[in-house]
Amino acid sequence: MKNIIIASTSTIHGSEYLEYLLDELAVFFKKASTILFIPYARPSGITHDEYTLKASEAFNKIDKKVIGIHTFKNPIEAIEKAEAIFVGGGNTFVLVNQLYKNKLFTAIKEVVENGTPYLGTSAGSNICGLTMNTTNDMPIVQPPSFKTIGLVPFNINPHYLDPDPNSTHKGETRETRIKEFHAYNSQPVVGLREGSWLAVKGNTIILKGEHTARIFKHNQEPFEVKPETSLSDLK
Amino acid sequence: MKNIIIASTSTIHGSEYLEYLLDELAVFFKKASTILFIPYARPSGITHDEYTLKASEAFNKIDKKVIGIHTFKNPIEAIEKAEAIFVGGGNTFVLVNQLYKNKLFTAIKEVVENGTPYLGTSAGSNICGLTMNTTNDMPIVQPPSFKTIGLVPFNINPHYLDPDPNSTHKGETRETRIKEFHAYNSQPVVGLREGSWLAVKGNTIILKGEHTARIFKHNQEPFEVKPETSLSDLK
Repeated sequence: MKNIIIASTSTIHGSEYLEYLLDELAVFFKKASTILFIPYARPSGITHDEYTLKASEAFNKIDKKVIGIHTFKNPIEAIEKAEAIFVGGGNTFVLVNQLYKNKLFTAIKEVVENGTPYLGTSAGSNICGLTMNTTNDMPIVQPPSFKTIGLVPFNINPHYLDPDPNSTHKGETRETRIKEFHAYNSQPVVGLREGSWLAVKGNTIILKGEHTARIFKHNQEPFEVKPETSLSDLK
Repeated sequence: MKNIIIASTSTIHGSEYLEYLLDELAVFFKKASTILFIPYARPSGITHDEYTLKASEAFNKIDKKVIGIHTFKNPIEAIEKAEAIFVGGGNTFVLVNQLYKNKLFTAIKEVVENGTPYLGTSAGSNICGLTMNTTNDMPIVQPPSFKTIGLVPFNINPHYLDPDPNSTHKGETRETRIKEFHAYNSQPVVGLREGSWLAVKGNTIILKGEHTARIFKHNQEPFEVKPETSLSDLK
């Protein structure tokens, strides 16, 4: 049975890395003593070691050990044997490119569908959707495909931002960008605000956290859903 | 001799489409009565016809006729015969994908290097750089390559935005994104603020408009350059 947390962000304003989620994660990862960390997204270009240390420091607070996948000779085997998986944020293009390079998409999909708990934040959440077409990241490298794992039958837009009515900037709003996405693609998009996450258990998908989420369906006006709403039928 | 305007944006706050540039464009396009418009970037998903109408309305004010490239049977021939070219903004992925589909990169490069005046705004400016890796746009479609025309020997980041010191949002700042770009790529990036443009004449590249631009070189601290600075040696 799938057991997944798809979080908008690792860090909310005024708190430490993963702090807002730690109580939830202590329960979520209760059967795991060690978490396999995939640091490929390299936020700010930091190394895999540096990023793994950062994740370790957070998980130490709930007595979990963290091992970076880059320290294994055989990363596919590392995924198959993992008690739990955490894919951190950073740049989605870099993450997806490295996952393709190491041929890890199939392995991750298989173990997660068979019950290995999976936590994704930001880029690590984007890849749970059908494609990475709704990432906010800069395309600093070119992955062979934008297709991602598809653990849920829609796309994720993490760090969802409402239009700023006072802005004088002429770059597109997030809503405009997702509208443009729907000129070429038909799957729904879940705009997850910072501090929100989706809890996936088997076929059930529930919005968690304090905020509403914004749902974009093809050829429909976007709408808000409240925390604890089921998105199990969204597709 | 190359004759190019690479503009950060088509529209600045509080003014009409292209209005801030019209005096400049009347001089820039003085030998052309008709401008070939490439509407492929489709801002907000509008049609090629709708977008061409919008460009027409602006250029009518300086007595120029605008024809959309989508109305030609043979778009390569349309480029070869054009008196002047304007590539409008929108989504860079959509623009680049369509340019590859219609095999237009070589034709544009050839005519522009031979003197056909070229105006780019936003996405139309991104493609003047070496690659589209520093676009701000959402990757809503997947082009076959991120390589672009390379009319200048660096990359462009249009709509450049300074970090907002009051923001509580955890998405990456523009500077962080470009720093991440430089973990994988070595060419410089010119961060062009809205209202700025690069005037390229032959081998001379000058920053124009009221604002400074931010220059990002590989393994160096970013720095500001003032209007009228030459970027001819930047590579």
